[in-house]
Parts: sequence; C-alpha cells; structure tokens
Amino acid sequence: MALFHVRMDVNIPRDLDPEVRAETIAKEKAYSQELQRAGKWPEIWRIVGKYSNISIFDVDSADELHEILFNLPLFPYMDIEVMALTKHGSDVK
Amino acid sequence: MALFHVRMDVNIPRDLDPEVRAETIAKEKAYSQELQRAGKWPEIWRIVGKYSNISIFDVDSADELHEILFNLPLFPYMDIEVMALTKHGSDVK
Amino acid sequence: MALFHVRMDVNIPRDLDPEVRAETIAKEKAYSQELQRAGKWPEIWRIVGKYSNISIFDVDSADELHEILFNLPLFPYMDIEVMALTKHGSDVK
Amino acid sequence: MALFHVRMDVNIPRDLDPEVRAETIAKEKAYSQELQRAGKWPEIWRIVGKYSNISIFDVDSADELHEILFNLPLFPYMDIEVMALTKHGSDVK
Amino acid sequence: MALFHVRMDVNIPRDLDPEVRAETIAKEKAYSQELQRAGKWPEIWRIVGKYSNISIFDVDSADELHEILFNLPLFPYMDIEVMALTKHGSDVK
Amino acid sequence: MALFHVRMDVNIPRDLDPEVRAETIAKEKAYSQELQRAGKWPEIWRIVGKYSNISIFDVDSADELHEILFNLPLFPYMDIEVMALTKHGSDVK
Amino acid sequence: MALFHVRMDVNIPRDLDPEVRAETIAKEKAYSQELQRAGKWPEIWRIVGKYSNISIFDVDSADELHEILFNLPLFPYMDIEVMALTKHGSDVK
Amino acid sequence: MALFHVRMDVNIPRDLDPEVRAETIAKEKAYSQELQRAGKWPEIWRIVGKYSNISIFDVDSADELHEILFNLPLFPYMDIEVMALTKHGSDVK
Amino acid sequence: MALFHVRMDVNIPRDLDPEVRAETIAKEKAYSQELQRAGKWPEIWRIVGKYSNISIFDVDSADELHEILFNLPLFPYMDIEVMALTKHGSDVK
Amino acid sequence: MALFHVRMDVNIPRDLDPEVRAETIAKEKAYSQELQRAGKWPEIWRIVGKYSNISIFDVDSADELHEILFNLPLFPYMDIEVMALTKHGSDVK
Repeated sequence: MALFHVRMDVNIPRDLDPEVRAETIAKEKAYSQELQRAGKWPEIWRIVGKYSNISIFDVDSADELHEILFNLPLFPYMDIEVMALTKHGSDVK
Repeated sequence: MALFHVRMDVNIPRDLDPEVRAETIAKEKAYSQELQRAGKWPEIWRIVGKYSNISIFDVDSADELHEILFNLPLFPYMDIEVMALTKHGSDVK
Repeated sequence: MALFHVRMDVNIPRDLDPEVRAETIAKEKAYSQELQRAGKWPEIWRIVGKYSNISIFDVDSADELHEILFNLPLFPYMDIEVMALTKHGSDVK
Repeated sequence: MALFHVRMDVNIPRDLDPEVRAETIAKEKAYSQELQRAGKWPEIWRIVGKYSNISIFDVDSADELHEILFNLPLFPYMDIEVMALTKHGSDVK
Repeated sequence: MALFHVRMDVNIPRDLDPEVRAETIAKEKAYSQELQRAGKWPEIWRIVGKYSNISIFDVDSADELHEILFNLPLFPYMDIEVMALTKHGSDVK
Repeated sequence: MALFHVRMDVNIPRDLDPEVRAETIAKEKAYSQELQRAGKWPEIWRIVGKYSNISIFDVDSADELHEILFNLPLFPYMDIEVMALTKHGSDVK
Repeated sequence: MALFHVRMDVNIPRDLDPEVRAETIAKEKAYSQELQRAGKWPEIWRIVGKYSNISIFDVDSADELHEILFNLPLFPYMDIEVMALTKHGSDVK
Repeated sequence: MALFHVRMDVNIPRDLDPEVRAETIAKEKAYSQELQRAGKWPEIWRIVGKYSNISIFDVDSADELHEILFNLPLFPYMDIEVMALTKHGSDVK
Repeated sequence: MALFHVRMDVNIPRDLDPEVRAETIAKEKAYSQELQRAGKWPEIWRIVGKYSNISIFDVDSADELHEILFNLPLFPYMDIEVMALTKHGSDVK
Repeated sequence: MALFHVRMDVNIPRDLDPEVRAETIAKEKAYSQELQRAGKWPEIWRIVGKYSNISIFDVDSADELHEILFNLPLFPYMDIEVMALTKHGSDVK
C-alpha cells in the first residue's frame, strides 16, 4: 500500500450554473465518502479559512491515486498537489 | 481539542559534534514517541526523498502546540510551518 | 481561548451586480461589527494602499474561527491567510 | 500617531558566544518591555512554531519606528518586514 | 511629515468601455497633478517597459496616504505596494 | 510497479575533505549504477549547466524509493524533489 | 541528437466549444503518437493529480523542438517549460 | 541623462574585522556623498526596518551606473536591483 | 548608446477578433523589422516552447526604449521585463 | 548549430585564497575569450549592478554547451540558468 499527502484548493467559477454547482458538490461528497468508507481516503481535513482540504490517501499505487483524483467531480475546478509519504522512523504505530 | 498540520524540515549543521548530533536525534525520537503515546501527536509521516516530516497534532490549544514545538530537541535546526485544521464536511468519521 | 492572525485580501469581481455588491459589503460590515462587539474579533486594521485587512481573532477554537470566516459575506471574493498566535515571552500584559 | 504591523523572524547564529547570546536576549526583552510600557509597542505575539513575532507599533512617525527597530539588540540577527496600517472602516473602536 | 515609496502596476480590463477608460485616465492625471502641486506626491516616474509607476509621497500620516491611494480613479485596476521610508544617514540634503 | 520523477541538485560543501569528496562521489556512482542495472533507476540525465540530474525511478513502492534516496552517498549534500508519475493516455508503449 | 525535458501544464478554457475541445484533444493525441512512433518524443508521463505531462524529446535541434511544440494542437492552452539535458556521467547505457 | 531606481540590501558578514567594517562603512558614506554632491545620486532613502536603501541615480548611461555601483565599497556585501525609469506622462515638473 | 536586455511574453486574449489579431501581429512584425533595420533592435530570438522573445535593444536612452516598447502593437498583451546591460570585461569585441 | 541564452551569477566565497581567486578569474577570462574567438560564445554582457552576465552560446549541441559550462573555472561559484533559443519569425537577419 502507498500513502500520499494531497492538498486540494477548490475554485469553482462564479458563473457556473447554480444547479450544476450544487449537484457537483453533492457528487463530490458522495464520491469522497465512498472512498473513505473503502479505506482508500482515510483522512480529510478542512484548512481553516480556505475552501481547501488536506487529505491522506492509502492506495495500491500512484496509478490508482491518479485515477481517483482525475475522477473527482470537482477536478476541473481544483488545484491539486501530491506528495508521497513513507513511514517515519519515530512512528510508534 | 484543536488539530494542527505541521511540516518540519530538518537541517542539522554539518559541523555539529557527532555525539551531540546522535544524542539530539535520540532525544527527539523519545520526545516525539512520548507525545504520540499521549495522543497529542497522532500522526507523523516522512516525506519521500526529504529529511522532513508531516505531522498532525491534537492539542488543547495553539499555546500548547507552541510549547511542544519550541521544546523539540531539533527545534534549532528545523523550519516549521503550522496550519490550523478543522473537520471537513465530507468526513465520515 | 485561541488567538489567530488573519489577513484578508478582497477582490470583488467587476461584473458583480452593483446592488448585490453594496448589499454584500454592508452585510460584511454588520457581521464584522457584531463579532467585534462580542469580543471574537478584537482587532481589524486596513493595510495602507490595499483593499485588505489584518485582523486578530480571539476564539474558543480553530473550528469556531473557520465557522466565522466561512460565513463572511465576502468570503467568496477573499483570499484568507490564517496564522496561529501564542503569548510572547516579552509581553508585559 | 502612526500604526505599523511588523513581523520579526529571529535567526541567532549558532556560533554566537552563549553569554553574548543570553545577554542580547535579555537586553532585547528589557528594551521591548520598556517600549511596551511607554505605549509605543502595544502588541507583541509569538507565531506558533517559529522564533518569530508579530508586533504592532504605535509611533509618532516612520522615522521613530526605524529608530526603534534599528536599535533592537537582536536587529543584526532578524529579518524585519514593516507594513503601514490605517483605521478600518468597520472598526467599532 | 512621512515619506512613502509606492509602486503602482496598472491593469485596466480590456472590456472597460473606451469612454469610461479615457475619462478615468484623464481623472487620474488631474488627481495626480493636483497632489503633485500640493507637494503631497513629490515624485512620479514611469518604469521602462511597463504600465507602472514608482512614486514618492510626502504626507502627514499613513492614514492620509491611504486616503489618497484609495481615491485614485484607477485604484480598482491597480496593484499597489507601499514601503515606509526614512532619512538615510548618508543623505547630504 | 511505481514510477517517480526525481530531481537532485547537488551542493557539496567547499570545505569537505577532498579525499572524502572523491570517495563519496565514487560511491554515489557505484550505487547509482547498481540500481540502474537492477532496473530500479532506469533513467538519469544531467541538466545542462547545472550539477543536477533528472532521474526516473521504477520501484515497488514509495517506501522503497525513500530507502534508495535516503541512502544515496551524496544525500546530505542534495536537495531532492519527488513527483509521482503515471501512464499517459497518449503513450504508445 | 539533442535531448530535452519538457513539462506541459494544460489549461483548456471552460467556455471552449465542447466539439472543438474534443477534436483538439483527439488531434493532440494523434500528433503526439505520430511523433512518439517517429522516435522524436520517446517518453511521455502523466503527473499524478494534474492535467500535466513530463515528456522527453529526442530531436535534431532546439529549432526542431520549437517547431514541434509550437504546432501542438493544445499549444494555446498550455504552459510549457523546456530544459536541455545531456548524458549523465553515471549513466550505464 | 538617464534615471535609474536602485535598491541595495546590505548584508555585512558577522566575522568581518570590526576595523575593516568601520572603515568600509565610512568609505561608503564618503563615496555616496561625493556622488550626491556631483548630482549623480540625487536621492537616497533608508527603508524602514531594514539595512537597505532606495536610491535614484541620474547618470549619463547605464555604463556609468555600473561603474559607480561596482565601485561601492560595500558592493561585495550588497544585493543590488536596478530598474530603468523614464518621465511619467503625469509628472508636472 | 545604451544596451538593454528585454524579455517579452505574449498572451493575446482568446476572444480578440481574429482579424484584429492577425492585423496586430502583422503590424508588430513590421514595426519590429523597421527597428531592426534601423539598428535599434539588433537581436531578437524566440524562447523554445514559448510565445516569448528575448531581445537586445541598442538605443540612445532608456526614454527612447520606453517609447519603443510602449508603442509595440502587442504591448497591451505582453508582459515585458527590462534589464540594463553594460560591456563585460572579458568581451573580445 | 544551436543557440542558448545563459545567465551566470557569480558568487565567489569571501574566504577563497586571494591568489587562487585572482588566478581563477584570470583563467575564466582566458577561457571565455578563447571560446569567443572560436565563435562558440558570440555574446557576453554584464548585467548592470550585478556580478552576473548574460551570454549567448552558439554550439553544435546541448552536450557541447554543458561541456563548456562545466569546465568554466568559476563554475563551482556560479549559479547558471540555460534557455534554448530559436530563430524568431520577425528576425530580419
């Protein structure tokens, strides 16, 4: 399994149709929660003061991660930064 | 309780006495593990390719976080970036 | 209580309906003043030459701060940077 | 009176004589507290996780501010950023 | 009196009505020249190759400077950076 | 298998003992070539005008990549940036 | 022959006609694959989490590379960074 | 005549011999004042909170400016940024 | 005579009328070639992979350079960076 | 033939032996002039106010350019940025 640190900054265009907007956000939530329940997306936090999140992904490969991210309903409106993680020598778990 | 995302980039000077160096790293590890076991420092990951970590702290306050960080044995040799986190609306936990 | 340093850079789109614009700015002012009077937002200054402010928030938690910021009427048109503060050892207060 | 927002990042060289170091820090504290008591330096906060502070100065002029900053005992070891402030239209004070 | 160094980068939107554009630029010029004649805006230079200027303001306070800048007819289309100046020890004047 | 794009910028301190320097560079070369022959490090190019390389790693996991990078003889003197890659939809291979 | 490292970040405007968009992407793919088969564009990888690629070009000259890049069907919607490469002293090939 | 805007950030090494330091600063002052009196260096201001200055040079050519700057006694310890200026269309002088 | 190094990054808006676009580009070419033939614009190169150029100007003054750049038909769609040059001590010409 | 735009920023360490310093600079000059006379290094200019140059190289390949740059006597003390150039469509030569 591979751990990745992902930051997503969301920037939905103002002129997006409000219904499309609401629908896309709802789809994003369902999509994220499905992956959280499947254990692929174990952590998601909101950055205080921003429409952004910090997430941890636990996937089989970087290929799987790209597949997941590319299919995020909000992907066209997000700036995504990926950082590979590994176990830290001081980690007690 | 307050969640914080912390990135630490370590840069120990080359001319630090090797014994002091080894001792400081050992103290850092013990200090970190004590806080991990106390639940204050629930996550620590190594960033691939770097002498850096991404950590999550779960503390009573920002004051407590500063206290913890300022007393890190490697504090004088680290660049630390702190970001306040909050629960994400899509989080299933 | 937790202290946060917040910088807000406002960038209202030129094509926002003038009435909506005026109304949003009025709501922002009322919202800010209510929080100032409640002691949650003790300081707000204008940065000279910019449509930006530096504010100090004194809140129960980072969660409360996010709640406040996310509900700013101008939130969709602002870039917000948050920095956690703690008491300084030289502070005489 | 003029308000200034000042950020100071301290970086004392490792090879500074420990006595000189301790003495300089003590002088800095005394100097700061004297100015705080005189009302020139009304606010000073520590940035969480950093050997840095955010300060507010309330001085007669930018000339006086420079005089104050240039004479900080830690001046040679600090990076200082100054930003002029003015009253915000929403300020209730 | 207080001296400030101000850089203004102008970026007028392409779709601004040409008459409004011409009128705004004319107002900006008149406004600037009035302040120059009043001694408040002693220097203004064009940066070679850019629609930008470097200006020196000589005002009673930062508050007055903000008042002046905020009322620039081109303010909504400018990025402004302010830097406080003070007399240099080598200045012969 | 996982593909990673790695940039290494080498900055060997001037005062490193010349023998240690030569030895470390020789070890680095042997270490790199062993990994190239094992198929773990399929590509390495020099960036023109710099003491830097762009490398492609083909490893079992990010954990293995970190292990490899952390043990580079020149690791203490390098700045390393890692980027996860995946197959491109237009790739004909 | 000359090797170049090229990063392309794609940013297709939202309001591009969907048919034009699909057609342009199809043309880009065909164009890229033709050059890959001709040996001019030996490597293309997707950067995980981004609508971006890292490519290696093996061309007769920088002039030929510019010709290729300038004629990319997606050229108007891409930010391209070029870096000249040369053989690395440790390369075993 | 040609006008140039020059910013100089001074960073004298801590280990410079104190006498050499004092002497170099004295030479710098004399050199600057001579050029000010000759009309070549009409303006010099201190940036508040920094060991930096903003200067205006009025020279025959960029060649003359380089000659002047390269011979500054503090040149080896300064970071210098030069920007060519021209008359502004709104300048009343 | 004064030498300047100029980088121009062109960014023509997508919605510019195609005829206006073609005409502006044609005018730009004619304007540039006239100045090249007059010896004012001795060098112009395309940066590989970009709609950008690096140019050398040989003009009487910075004022003349600004005049030339400000009147470039593509000026409203370009980002221009100017750097003053002088003869290098190793130049054999 | 291939054209490259190269910027070199020189930063010779203060503690370099003065004789070694003088000798290295002399070697650099001779090396540069030899390449200029051979037509490989057709242009070299000093950037005003900096110990930096902008150079144009006209070489057979990027490999040859790297060979030349890597063997510059001042290479260990320089930061070098390389940019590939190609003929501009408006060039009259």
